[in-house]
Amino acid sequence: MQSFDLDKTDVSKIKAALGGSDEELKVILEEYHASEIAILFESLAKEDKQRIINLLSVEIASEVISEMHEESHPEELLLQLHPDKRTEIVEELDYDDATDIISQLEEHEQKEILGDLSEDDASSIRNLLSYHEETAGGLMNTEFIRINLNLTKKDAIDEIIRQSEEIEEFYTVYVIDDENTFQGIVSLKDIIKAKGNVKITELVKAEVAWVHPDTDQEEVARLISQYNITSIPVLDNDMKLLGRVTFDDVIDVLEDENTEDILKISGVSEDEELSGNWVEAVKSRLPWLILNLGTAFLASGVIRHFEPTIKLIEVLPAYMTIIAGMGGNAATQALAVTVRRISLYDLTDNQAYRTVLKEVTVGLINGAVTGLIVFLFAVFFDSNPMLGLVIFLAMTGNLLIAGITGAGIPLILKRVGIDPAIASSIIITTFTDVFGFLLLLGLASKLLL
Amino acid sequence: MQSFDLDKTDVSKIKAALGGSDEELKVILEEYHASEIAILFESLAKEDKQRIINLLSVEIASEVISEMHEESHPEELLLQLHPDKRTEIVEELDYDDATDIISQLEEHEQKEILGDLSEDDASSIRNLLSYHEETAGGLMNTEFIRINLNLTKKDAIDEIIRQSEEIEEFYTVYVIDDENTFQGIVSLKDIIKAKGNVKITELVKAEVAWVHPDTDQEEVARLISQYNITSIPVLDNDMKLLGRVTFDDVIDVLEDENTEDILKISGVSEDEELSGNWVEAVKSRLPWLILNLGTAFLASGVIRHFEPTIKLIEVLPAYMTIIAGMGGNAATQALAVTVRRISLYDLTDNQAYRTVLKEVTVGLINGAVTGLIVFLFAVFFDSNPMLGLVIFLAMTGNLLIAGITGAGIPLILKRVGIDPAIASSIIITTFTDVFGFLLLLGLASKLLL
Repeated sequence: MQSFDLDKTDVSKIKAALGGSDEELKVILEEYHASEIAILFESLAKEDKQRIINLLSVEIASEVISEMHEESHPEELLLQLHPDKRTEIVEELDYDDATDIISQLEEHEQKEILGDLSEDDASSIRNLLSYHEETAGGLMNTEFIRINLNLTKKDAIDEIIRQSEEIEEFYTVYVIDDENTFQGIVSLKDIIKAKGNVKITELVKAEVAWVHPDTDQEEVARLISQYNITSIPVLDNDMKLLGRVTFDDVIDVLEDENTEDILKISGVSEDEELSGNWVEAVKSRLPWLILNLGTAFLASGVIRHFEPTIKLIEVLPAYMTIIAGMGGNAATQALAVTVRRISLYDLTDNQAYRTVLKEVTVGLINGAVTGLIVFLFAVFFDSNPMLGLVIFLAMTGNLLIAGITGAGIPLILKRVGIDPAIASSIIITTFTDVFGFLLLLGLASKLLL
Repeated sequence: MQSFDLDKTDVSKIKAALGGSDEELKVILEEYHASEIAILFESLAKEDKQRIINLLSVEIASEVISEMHEESHPEELLLQLHPDKRTEIVEELDYDDATDIISQLEEHEQKEILGDLSEDDASSIRNLLSYHEETAGGLMNTEFIRINLNLTKKDAIDEIIRQSEEIEEFYTVYVIDDENTFQGIVSLKDIIKAKGNVKITELVKAEVAWVHPDTDQEEVARLISQYNITSIPVLDNDMKLLGRVTFDDVIDVLEDENTEDILKISGVSEDEELSGNWVEAVKSRLPWLILNLGTAFLASGVIRHFEPTIKLIEVLPAYMTIIAGMGGNAATQALAVTVRRISLYDLTDNQAYRTVLKEVTVGLINGAVTGLIVFLFAVFFDSNPMLGLVIFLAMTGNLLIAGITGAGIPLILKRVGIDPAIASSIIITTFTDVFGFLLLLGLASKLLL
């Protein structure tokens, strides 16, 4: 439980209020936090969202827009507003949030919005737009508290209070020298606790993690998570302070990266929007299905090769689906565990080797156990112990191959610098289909004919 | 890039230093942050870890232990230490970290460790051990800064400085009344900025998100992420302040929950340790494979039913694997997108309905396109246009079923309160196997015989 929790009642309440006067609507809106209004927006029509934004103060309106999920397209809402209102809101936004939203627009629309801003704001945003979206530069905010190394405690506190008029949230104060070169960090707490009017030089913590603007967002997230810090400074090659990335951006990055992983492993393009329409979904998935079709023809070729065997042992097709299906699922299991393990830890060569060895063991055991069940079925239901033996061997062999490929392929991909999650179930199940049929039908033609 | 980055050189460096004297090793260790030593520990032997912990100051040693990943089993390392050293380290740990580690031990081992602590520390940890690991109570820390509502600015700052001797990190100050009832939060920044010697009553922000100790950890993570806050207070039914959960715990929760999702969707038990041994892996996966075997017999039964048809049209088994494989992969795609969408957003009934409708459209289109390719293959390779038509219809029908089940089943599970990720690829592919064979073989026996 918590003081704020949205449900259908809230959506109905807002929808009912939309039928009333602006004044009534305003009263209802005051009950909600900006991030809650952003969530409620997901259930509202375009015109209603515009009306609400126009009723809200510029502070709340800009917070709502910055809290809207990327997939709710805050940039479209922004475009639909009156240019004056829009400019007010964009100027109120943090530079990094404004950049994220504006970057989703066409170039001529970006120009239109930036043209209405003060030259200072426009050039800051233009600068941030130049970084790739998925790097520290693309995530960073250029507004933060920075104080000079040579200030005394008293002057530093005054300076922090002055700068914090502009900056809502900060958890760390950055320390620079006269040339804007980064010197380290200091916490507000340590400044206050310091006895006497000491200089910041004596309080600064110099050994801190930092990143380049072109550091990948996953690495930024890893560092913030590893060092449990609320923000990480972004420095250029001359150690000049460009900005900071905060923990809340990292939480969003983690959600995005995890969505990417789960989609890729399932054979969906990583850039398919979860709430996108069918056109995007077809574009994202059809290429993978066509690739899968190619690999399915391969498995199909194996079956064609053994058509004479199948003609003689009519029950074989019924067992083929069992061997192939079990192999595919066992491979998906090994793949999921290995991909996730690679994405959370850096494995040494020795650990990678032991991972494959473990999956070989698991494949052999799970293959033997499930193979034994099917053996018993073949003995008692089809009264054919020799067929049972063939199936037992094929099942064990195929689950062994499932373990080797499910663990080995992502590890090899990682080693050669390719994202291991691309070793989707589509690729992996090709191996288990082809080898499963080869084993079952090959053994059948040797041992049963 | 960043100032700290570990690679194989670091591991070799530590390993080389382990060959030398304690003094030499100490010098090398000073180059590393505690969280880096925790990572290096993953490559070291038990005895080496013990030796390093004994060489480090108690502050660094406790930080290393708290930063060790759960799967590296810090509790085992702790048990192996001399009882005096162990007590020092546990007393230095934050209560929540100590609880996490101790909770992994057997009851008699827990008693042994807690018995050596001061009564105060032992009872705090015992209290935290009583909450379920995956709730706010299990995540919370009971050490935080709390000040009385009636303090003046000056007294409040003195009180914060006094309390912060004990508490390393804090980002928010909690405000309570004389009965320890939670009144809201205030930031250190706002206290410092306040003009004159005002009372805290005038600065406190009362409308804030909070949780109960039994709130699920996923909900805690969602709130911290939604409100972009560094910590969230944990209150009991009488609004008494019990503790706080901080953003760094939430980052860990997100990683864990995402691992769970990716494992469950792939038919692996959520509690399989990624770096566990083969025994655990077999225990975690074999039940799912046996379930899959049951469903595979179902698909196999459909094939048996159509044995006479297959006998007459020998090429059918070669096409069966294509129809079943494509259906399984299309269903996995729809499943991944839907499960991920459910876990990030709360869908209304209308949105759920539109999601299924979208997947129906995607299934029909992807089915028709890939079906057409196989149709052409049947016409030109097998010179059998009627067979081509049957395959085209079966493919389109099966990808339609893939869309309906891949999106529909997780949505239904969510509605009835079951974790949608349990609708693993194993369950979903049963439908596409059974219906794929039914469609292909049923149509073939009607239209081709």
